[in-house]
Amino acid sequence: MLYEINEKALKLESQGKKIIRLNLGDPDLETPPEIIEAASEAMKAGKTKYSSAYGEMSLRTKLAEIHGVKPENVVITPGSKWGVFSTMYLLLKGGGNVIIPTPYWTAYSLIAKSIGANVKLLRTELEDEWEIDTTRLRALIDDNTKMIILNNPNNPTSKVIDSKTLDAVVEIADRKGITILSDEVYSTIAFKKTKSILEYDGSCKHILCNSFSKTFTMTGWRVGYLIANRELVEGITRLNQITINNVPVFIQEAALKGLELHKKLASEIRDEYKKRADMACEILSKASLCFTPPEAPFYVFPRHSGLDSEKFTLDLLDKGVAIAPGTSFGDYREHFRISLTVPQDEIRVALDKICEALE
Amino acid sequence: MLYEINEKALKLESQGKKIIRLNLGDPDLETPPEIIEAASEAMKAGKTKYSSAYGEMSLRTKLAEIHGVKPENVVITPGSKWGVFSTMYLLLKGGGNVIIPTPYWTAYSLIAKSIGANVKLLRTELEDEWEIDTTRLRALIDDNTKMIILNNPNNPTSKVIDSKTLDAVVEIADRKGITILSDEVYSTIAFKKTKSILEYDGSCKHILCNSFSKTFTMTGWRVGYLIANRELVEGITRLNQITINNVPVFIQEAALKGLELHKKLASEIRDEYKKRADMACEILSKASLCFTPPEAPFYVFPRHSGLDSEKFTLDLLDKGVAIAPGTSFGDYREHFRISLTVPQDEIRVALDKICEALE
Repeated sequence: MLYEINEKALKLESQGKKIIRLNLGDPDLETPPEIIEAASEAMKAGKTKYSSAYGEMSLRTKLAEIHGVKPENVVITPGSKWGVFSTMYLLLKGGGNVIIPTPYWTAYSLIAKSIGANVKLLRTELEDEWEIDTTRLRALIDDNTKMIILNNPNNPTSKVIDSKTLDAVVEIADRKGITILSDEVYSTIAFKKTKSILEYDGSCKHILCNSFSKTFTMTGWRVGYLIANRELVEGITRLNQITINNVPVFIQEAALKGLELHKKLASEIRDEYKKRADMACEILSKASLCFTPPEAPFYVFPRHSGLDSEKFTLDLLDKGVAIAPGTSFGDYREHFRISLTVPQDEIRVALDKICEALE
Repeated sequence: MLYEINEKALKLESQGKKIIRLNLGDPDLETPPEIIEAASEAMKAGKTKYSSAYGEMSLRTKLAEIHGVKPENVVITPGSKWGVFSTMYLLLKGGGNVIIPTPYWTAYSLIAKSIGANVKLLRTELEDEWEIDTTRLRALIDDNTKMIILNNPNNPTSKVIDSKTLDAVVEIADRKGITILSDEVYSTIAFKKTKSILEYDGSCKHILCNSFSKTFTMTGWRVGYLIANRELVEGITRLNQITINNVPVFIQEAALKGLELHKKLASEIRDEYKKRADMACEILSKASLCFTPPEAPFYVFPRHSGLDSEKFTLDLLDKGVAIAPGTSFGDYREHFRISLTVPQDEIRVALDKICEALE
């Protein structure tokens, strides 16, 4: 229903109606000018030719340094989504199933469906602070389970996986020979330390999927990366050669500039989103909504008992606020997702309208 | 062997050796400054956000005008290769085979292999001026044949398909209910009129795959498009949503600028490559090599009786010239491909070395 809501919001806007858009994960902040400048300079310098399907060595080397791996473990992708697709395409097209904790980013299961892989959903609950129940995880695994996808921090809950829970999940996966694909696109700007999948394993048995989109406000640039063992990096590179070929070099130069300015940019973005999250928590708490406080940008995923969030979302759109119903992230009809991706004053107006509509 | 040659050429260059690179289809000309300027302006104007998986309506509308179709028949892709991959992924992943005339761009069969589709090669010969033998085409078709891929003009022969032959191929395909995927990336800058697959059919039963790479010297920008019926356009858009998401909007703005300057840019590029082709023909004819004169950029595909082109290519590399052996395009061991993608004076030096090495 995410696309339906967005299309309706766009239509209302085109009719001149003011809509506060809290329905997408596309930050309102602009790409920093230094990054735009780096791309322009690279284009002017002629970096507009075919290039390596692995990605530029300069960018791979810098990322390897940051993550404590070797450059040959890094492959540049046109967004993290391509990292997820290409990994699943290579590891699951021969058959098998993938376990995904919910609530979840539905692209994972759409990709699995497209490839012909089976999905096993592992439900987590607000009451458990969205913690993965490892007993239930073990019970879900069968001989055809090839992969577990973790989204850490999570979209839509903005919850960071507790490090002990993560230890237990990794232990189970290792014992069963299952690959973990860890999508950590929100981790660099999380409000608390997020334990990366790479901390477990120098040989990159598991897979890190990451992006420049959220950390550097580069959503539309389509640049991300994947860190994995050499075999998978080679496989994805061969797939790149017959699909996307390469991420434009001038975009990779822009991403490299982002990494150079990393500390400054990431902390600015984190601070702004922390303020928004604190404000949202305060307002939503007063309205007696149940939720876990965000531990990362950009989302809050509150529950209101007895709510039909699809109906609620559509009604709210007529009142000028776009959000996403909980059903877009699994079987969570009483929940809805608010993206804090507009300025604080607009968030305040929108949240007041949400609370009012729930009364 | 294409990749092997390129890697070896890069290695020799890194050792300080001068290599004239006639092995790739990456033009030496720069992306026109107007196009670079358009991209820079769009980035500065904030066109750096997530956008439509169909592509921008402005670009789709312009392309629809040019090709005489509706905007809903156009989808923007990150390069034409993605158009080929996504079409084959959607039409062939359920099984079936695809017929490809040779000599051919090997990406087609690598894609088929990756998806699990079978390839049936349809050999064409220099003696027949690379014309498709429609009797043999008919004999090759079976109940599982889903697609025919045409590359018109062709890489590596630079031959435009004769319009009567094309008529016959389309008639066979239509009668058997087979989809033609026509890759026409060299057509706009061809030296003679190339009949497009779209000329047969207002309802877009067959598929046109095209790119901005060759026409506007935008190889590394990764932007192309596909024209097809609405069902396939919707299918590719859904695939885009779970893979590449969208081509960066600022790149689409650059492509749109290219289309506005189309006549001027395309004719400049065509004129330059025609001069190079004429010069190459003159030199190669004197050396008693057999070939058809190029009808489009960028290649000549001569034959030398008894040649082992793989050995010849490797030996030639040591003499400072990189070309591609005929075996990279199918079973054409006596042929080799020369890319005329360096300035004329360098082409002359390289061709002299080639002729000398053949004596």
